[in-house]
Amino acid sequence: MTDLSLIDGLIAPKSVAIIGASEDPGRIGGRPIAAMLKAGYEGRILPVNPKRDTVQGLPCYASVGDLPEAPEAALIAVPAKLVPQTIEALGRKGCKAATLFSAGFAETGAEGEAAQRELVALAGKHGMRLLGPNTLGVYNVDIGYYGTFSSSLDTGFPRPGNIGIASQSGAFGAHLGALARDQGLGCSVLITTGNEADITVADAIRWMAESDSIDVICTYMEAVNDAPALLAALDVARAAGKPVLALKSGRSAVGARAAASHTASLTGDAVVADAVLTDHGAIILRDPESMMDIAYAASKKVLPSQHSLGVVTVSGGAGIVASDEAERIGLPMPSMPDEAQAKLLEVLPYASAVNPLDCTAQALNEPALLEQFTRAGLEEGGYGAVLCFLTYVAGSERLSKVILEAMAPLRAAFPDRIIAFCALGDPEVLRRYDEAGILVFNDPCRAVRALDAVLRLGSAQASSVKAALPEPKPVLLPATSPDEAEAKALLAEAGINAAPEQAVQSAEEAVAAAEGFGYPVVMKILSPDILHKSDIGAVKLNIRDADGVRAAHADILSAAATHASHARVSGVLVARQLSGGVECLMGINRDPTFGPVAVFGLGGIFVELLNDVALRACPFGPETAREMILSIRSAAILQGARGAAPADIDALAEMLSKLSVFAAGAGERLVSIDLNPVLAMPEGQGAYALDAVIELDAQEVAADGH
Amino acid sequence: MTDLSLIDGLIAPKSVAIIGASEDPGRIGGRPIAAMLKAGYEGRILPVNPKRDTVQGLPCYASVGDLPEAPEAALIAVPAKLVPQTIEALGRKGCKAATLFSAGFAETGAEGEAAQRELVALAGKHGMRLLGPNTLGVYNVDIGYYGTFSSSLDTGFPRPGNIGIASQSGAFGAHLGALARDQGLGCSVLITTGNEADITVADAIRWMAESDSIDVICTYMEAVNDAPALLAALDVARAAGKPVLALKSGRSAVGARAAASHTASLTGDAVVADAVLTDHGAIILRDPESMMDIAYAASKKVLPSQHSLGVVTVSGGAGIVASDEAERIGLPMPSMPDEAQAKLLEVLPYASAVNPLDCTAQALNEPALLEQFTRAGLEEGGYGAVLCFLTYVAGSERLSKVILEAMAPLRAAFPDRIIAFCALGDPEVLRRYDEAGILVFNDPCRAVRALDAVLRLGSAQASSVKAALPEPKPVLLPATSPDEAEAKALLAEAGINAAPEQAVQSAEEAVAAAEGFGYPVVMKILSPDILHKSDIGAVKLNIRDADGVRAAHADILSAAATHASHARVSGVLVARQLSGGVECLMGINRDPTFGPVAVFGLGGIFVELLNDVALRACPFGPETAREMILSIRSAAILQGARGAAPADIDALAEMLSKLSVFAAGAGERLVSIDLNPVLAMPEGQGAYALDAVIELDAQEVAADGH
Repeated sequence: MTDLSLIDGLIAPKSVAIIGASEDPGRIGGRPIAAMLKAGYEGRILPVNPKRDTVQGLPCYASVGDLPEAPEAALIAVPAKLVPQTIEALGRKGCKAATLFSAGFAETGAEGEAAQRELVALAGKHGMRLLGPNTLGVYNVDIGYYGTFSSSLDTGFPRPGNIGIASQSGAFGAHLGALARDQGLGCSVLITTGNEADITVADAIRWMAESDSIDVICTYMEAVNDAPALLAALDVARAAGKPVLALKSGRSAVGARAAASHTASLTGDAVVADAVLTDHGAIILRDPESMMDIAYAASKKVLPSQHSLGVVTVSGGAGIVASDEAERIGLPMPSMPDEAQAKLLEVLPYASAVNPLDCTAQALNEPALLEQFTRAGLEEGGYGAVLCFLTYVAGSERLSKVILEAMAPLRAAFPDRIIAFCALGDPEVLRRYDEAGILVFNDPCRAVRALDAVLRLGSAQASSVKAALPEPKPVLLPATSPDEAEAKALLAEAGINAAPEQAVQSAEEAVAAAEGFGYPVVMKILSPDILHKSDIGAVKLNIRDADGVRAAHADILSAAATHASHARVSGVLVARQLSGGVECLMGINRDPTFGPVAVFGLGGIFVELLNDVALRACPFGPETAREMILSIRSAAILQGARGAAPADIDALAEMLSKLSVFAAGAGERLVSIDLNPVLAMPEGQGAYALDAVIELDAQEVAADGH
Repeated sequence: MTDLSLIDGLIAPKSVAIIGASEDPGRIGGRPIAAMLKAGYEGRILPVNPKRDTVQGLPCYASVGDLPEAPEAALIAVPAKLVPQTIEALGRKGCKAATLFSAGFAETGAEGEAAQRELVALAGKHGMRLLGPNTLGVYNVDIGYYGTFSSSLDTGFPRPGNIGIASQSGAFGAHLGALARDQGLGCSVLITTGNEADITVADAIRWMAESDSIDVICTYMEAVNDAPALLAALDVARAAGKPVLALKSGRSAVGARAAASHTASLTGDAVVADAVLTDHGAIILRDPESMMDIAYAASKKVLPSQHSLGVVTVSGGAGIVASDEAERIGLPMPSMPDEAQAKLLEVLPYASAVNPLDCTAQALNEPALLEQFTRAGLEEGGYGAVLCFLTYVAGSERLSKVILEAMAPLRAAFPDRIIAFCALGDPEVLRRYDEAGILVFNDPCRAVRALDAVLRLGSAQASSVKAALPEPKPVLLPATSPDEAEAKALLAEAGINAAPEQAVQSAEEAVAAAEGFGYPVVMKILSPDILHKSDIGAVKLNIRDADGVRAAHADILSAAATHASHARVSGVLVARQLSGGVECLMGINRDPTFGPVAVFGLGGIFVELLNDVALRACPFGPETAREMILSIRSAAILQGARGAAPADIDALAEMLSKLSVFAAGAGERLVSIDLNPVLAMPEGQGAYALDAVIELDAQEVAADGH
C-alpha cells in the first residue's frame, strides 16, 4: 500500500533541488528551472552544480550536502553512473522524493535492470520514493511546479484546470498535455512514470483520485505493472465520482499462454485488460481525440442520471446526422411527449417537434425559439443532455451575444443536465459559451460520442450498487493435471454439474452404467494426456443399446492404443447423452497480470469465427455472470431466438459464477479450465458440463524433497 | 442527360442579376451583393429593385425588363408568389440559369409541390435551368462569385482550393464549408441544391467531376432523387480520378417494403444506398470530421498504389497507438526488410527498426535521423505512406525549420508517396509543412484513418479493370405471383437449379416421383398463398419409404385445409432431399431508388441475428458475385472452417449472378425473390435452391379492360 502523502512531495513539493542544474534553459538540467521561473513556482528552487555559483540567476549549491535545507523534492539530471551516490546524498540530507530524468537503466537490458533494482533498495533505505528513472517528469500548473524537461513547454504552458494525465510514456503523456492545451482544456497535472521502478501509473491515478484539484483522470498505459494497485486506484476514483479515461496501447499483443488451451486464445492480454478495467469503471479508449472530448465534457462535473439525448437544430440535415450517430452507438433519443410537441408546433408550425427538434432558420431571427425548444427538451423531454446544432451561426459575433443571453438562464435552471453546442467560428467567441457552462464541440458526431460517454457515467453512478464479491474457498488440487473424470469430480465439489456419468474399467461395467442412466449414452476415453479426444476417434456418441456399448468400449481403447500409445489411460467414461439444449463454452485462463479470468461464449463458430465472448476477472456472483452471458452478441440464441425454447440462463449463470469462485480459490497452479461444451438445457432444466479439462502447473517439490 | 454547360451559368456566371436586391447587407437580397463586392467578383452585378436607384453603391434596375443585358445567372430573392412572373421575365430577357432562394414550395406540402412543378415547366419553356427553390445557393471562390445568402460568410470567407461540396441541405453544406475554412482547407465551390426541382446533387457532383478546378468532391445527401444521374456522375468522377466522399444521412429509415418478404428487411434504404454508391467508387462516411480529414489528404492529389503504412516516431508509445488503429481498420503495416533494419540499427542502436520505426528522442538533437528513417520506410519499406509522429516537437519554431529542411527533399524524391506528420502547435508553424507537401494531422488515429482511405483509393485505381456487366434479357412473368413449382420453373429457365423435384396431384403420383428420385425425399404444399409452409405443418422432411410418402401427402393436405382454408392449393411438391451442404440465402428486393438489389448471406442466425449479408445492385457477373459471397463475415464457413469440406462457391456465384440478371430483366413488377435455403454442396457438387418465393405486383389491366 502506497503512502500517498509521500507522493505529494513528488507532485506538489514546497521546495525542489535540481541535481545537475544547468544555466542553459534548453538542457535537461536547465529546462525545469527556466520553466518554474517563468511560471512563478510557489516553492523554493535549489540548483545543485559543483561548477557554478549561480544558475539562471538563482544561488547554486556545490553539492547536495551543501543545500540549506532538506528539499521536499529532487530532480536528478545526472548521468546514470552518478545516480546512486546522488540518491545516497539526498537520502542523508532528508529528501523523501526524487524524480529521475536519467536514462540508462531497465530500458537498456539486464545490467540496467539490476542497477535500477539497487536504486530502489537504496532509496528505500532512506524512506525515499522514486519517480522514473527514464521519466519526463511531472508538472503541476496550480503551483507553477515544472519538474519536467518536456519540450512541449516550448510551444506554451498548459492551462490550469481539473483534468489530470497519468502516463507511462513521457512523450505521449506530454502529447496529451499539449493536445489539451491546444484545444483550450484545463489540465493542471501531468505525471509520467517512465520505467516505474517505484511509483507506477496506478499510484499516479490514485493520487489524482484523492486530490482536490483533479476531477477527471486521463491515463495512457502500455503495461500493467501492478494490477492490484491499479484496480484499487480505479475503485477509489469511482467512489470519488471521478471518471478515469484510459488509453491502453499494444492491443495486438497476445500473451505466451495463448496456445495453451482452447479458450486461452480468446483472452489476449489487451482484451482481458479492457474487460477488467471496464469492470472497475474505467472508460477504455483507442484514440487521444475521444479522450480529450470526453475529458472536456466530464470536466464540467455534470453527470446526468438520464442516458438520453435531445437534439435541437436550426437545420434538419444536422439533426439527422446526429441522430444516425446516436443510434449507431446506442444513445437513446426518445421522442418528445405528444403534448410538448403540440405546444412547440403552436409556437412554430413548420418546426419538427419529435426529436431531433428543428426550430428552423427562423431561430436566427428569433433566438428565443432556440431557448424554447431547448427548454422543452430538458423539461418535458427529460433528456440528460440537449445538443444544439448551431454551426457558424453561434460563431457570429453579433448573434453570439443574443444566443448567450437567451440560453444562459437554462444553465442555471437545469444544473444537473448538459447543454452542448455544435458550433464553428472564432475560438474567442465560442469560449464565451464554454464559460457560461455550455459545452462546445465543432463536430456533431464527436459531440454525440462524448455526451454518450458522460451520460453513461452518470447513469452508471445512479444505478451502481455493487454486489459483494463471493468469497473463494481454498481448493485442494491434485499434484498434476487431472483426467476428465477427476476434473469433473473436482468441479462437482464446487457445485458444477456434469451430465450423469461413470468411469468404468470393463465393457460389462460400461453396459451396467449405461442401463442405469438409460439410452442413448456417450462414451469416451479417460486420460489426462489426451486433450482432443474426438480427433483420434476416442469419443462415441448416440450409443443406443448394450451391443453398441460393448463395441464402443473396444473401439475407444483401440483408438487410444493406436493414436496415443504413450498416454496414461485410466478407463472409459460412460455418460447419459443429453440433447435439446444450446451448446455453450465456459473457461478459465490465468492471465499473467490479472490472475484467473473467466470466459463465456456459445459453442462452435460463434467463438471460433466471430470471437463473440464475454470476459471477467474471477471471482464474481451469479448476477454478474448473468450480465456476462447476456452481453454476448449472440445472446438471443439463449433467449429463445427462432422459435426455440429459452435456455436455462439462471443455471448457466450459477455455473459460471461457481466456476469463477473455484478458479479464484485454486491459486496460481491453475493454468486453465475448459468446459466445452456446456449444454444449457431449456429453462428450468439446468446446465451441464459435457466435457471438462483442467490444466495445472505441476506441484512444486518441497525444498527438502530434492 | 443534363447539359453541363448550362449549369456553368449557375456556378461560374459572368454576370448576375439579383431580383429583390436589398441595400441591407444582412438581408437575403443584400447578402450576396455585399459578399461579391467584398470578394471582388470578376463578373457584373446587376441589382433589380423597383424602389431604388442604387443598391450598395451599384446602379439598380426597376425590373428585369430594364436590365441592360441578359444576365448569365439570376438570384431570385422575392416571395414565393412573385417567383413565376420573375422567371417569366428572366426567360424573356434571355437568362438561362436562376437560383431560387425563395421558400414556400414543395417543402410546404402538396400545393407548394404543384407550384414548384409549374416553375419547372415555365423555366423549361425558356430553356432555363433552376437551382432550388429553397436553396442557400452557390459560391465559387475562384471568381469571387457568392450566389448565396449563407451567414457562414459572417465568420469569414472560404479559402480557395480544389475541394468542392455538393449538398442537398443548405445549412449543412455551409457547415461543411465553414468547417473546411476553420481547418485551413481550400474549398472553392459549394453548391446547395435545396428542393431539387431541377438541378440535383447528382448534377452538382457531375459538374465538379468535369471541372478543372475541383479535385475532391464532398457530398451530403438525404435522399437520392435521381439514381441513374447520380451513379453516372460517380462513374465520371471515378474515371477522372476524383474521390467522392459521401455523407448520407437518414440511416435508420427502412422502406415500407421492408415487411413484404424475408430478405427485404435486410435491405433498408440506407444500406442499399451504401452498397450501390460504394460499388460506384464513392467513400461512404458518417461524420463531417472524417470527410474533412480524407478530403484534406486527397486534395494533394497523391494517391499511392501501395495500401501500406510505415510509422516513424520519436516516442514508442505513439507508434503503438497508431499501429493499433491501423490493425483495427485493416491498414497493413508490413515489417521493414531485414537488411534495412540492420542498417538503421547501425545508425542508432537503441532504435526500433521493424515498423513502427522509433528513432527515439535522439531525433530531437539530430533531425537527420528522422529523414533517414522516413527515407528507409519509403525506399526499402516501400510503404504507400509514412506517418511521422512528431507531436509538439514539430510545432517548435526553432526545430520546425531544421525538420523541414531535412524532410522537404524526401517530398521531391518520392512524389508518388504520402508523407504525413502528426504534430501539435501554432497553426502558422504547422502550415509550413503543409505548404511543402507534407500532410499535417493533430491526432495519430485520425491520421491513420484518413491515410487508409486515400491509400485504398489509390490501390483501387491501380487495380480497377471493371468487368463488363452482363446483359439482362427480358423475362416473361406470369400475371400474378407464381407458386413454388412455377417459381422454380421460371428460375430454371434462367439457369438456376432447384433440387430434383416434381409437382404431384395424388399420393400415388407422389410415391412414383419419390421412387424415381430415390429416398429420402421432402414433401411440401404447393400454394402461392402460403409463404411460411413449415409454420402450419405443410412441410415434411426425411421421408424414407412409400408409406411415409402416402402419410405425408395426407398430412400436408389436411394441414393446409385446416390452417389455410382459403389458400389456393395446386398440389404437393416432392423433392429429393439433399444434405451435407451449407445453407445459404439469396434474394432480390426491389429498392424504390436503385431497382432490384441482390442479397446474399448464410442461413439462419447469421442473417437473422448478425445481419451478415452482402448487397449489390443487379445485374452483375459471377466474379462480382464471388466477391460478394466472400465479403460476408462468416464466409469462412463456406471456405471449409472447422474441418468441413469447402462449399461450391463457384456454383453459388454463378447462381447469384444469374439471379441478378433474371431480376434485372424482370422489370418493375418484380417485388422480391427469396431463395431460402440455397444449399451449397461441397466443391464441384453444385448449389441448389431448395425453396423459391417470387413476389410480383399484379399485372396492370390494360386501359380497355375496365
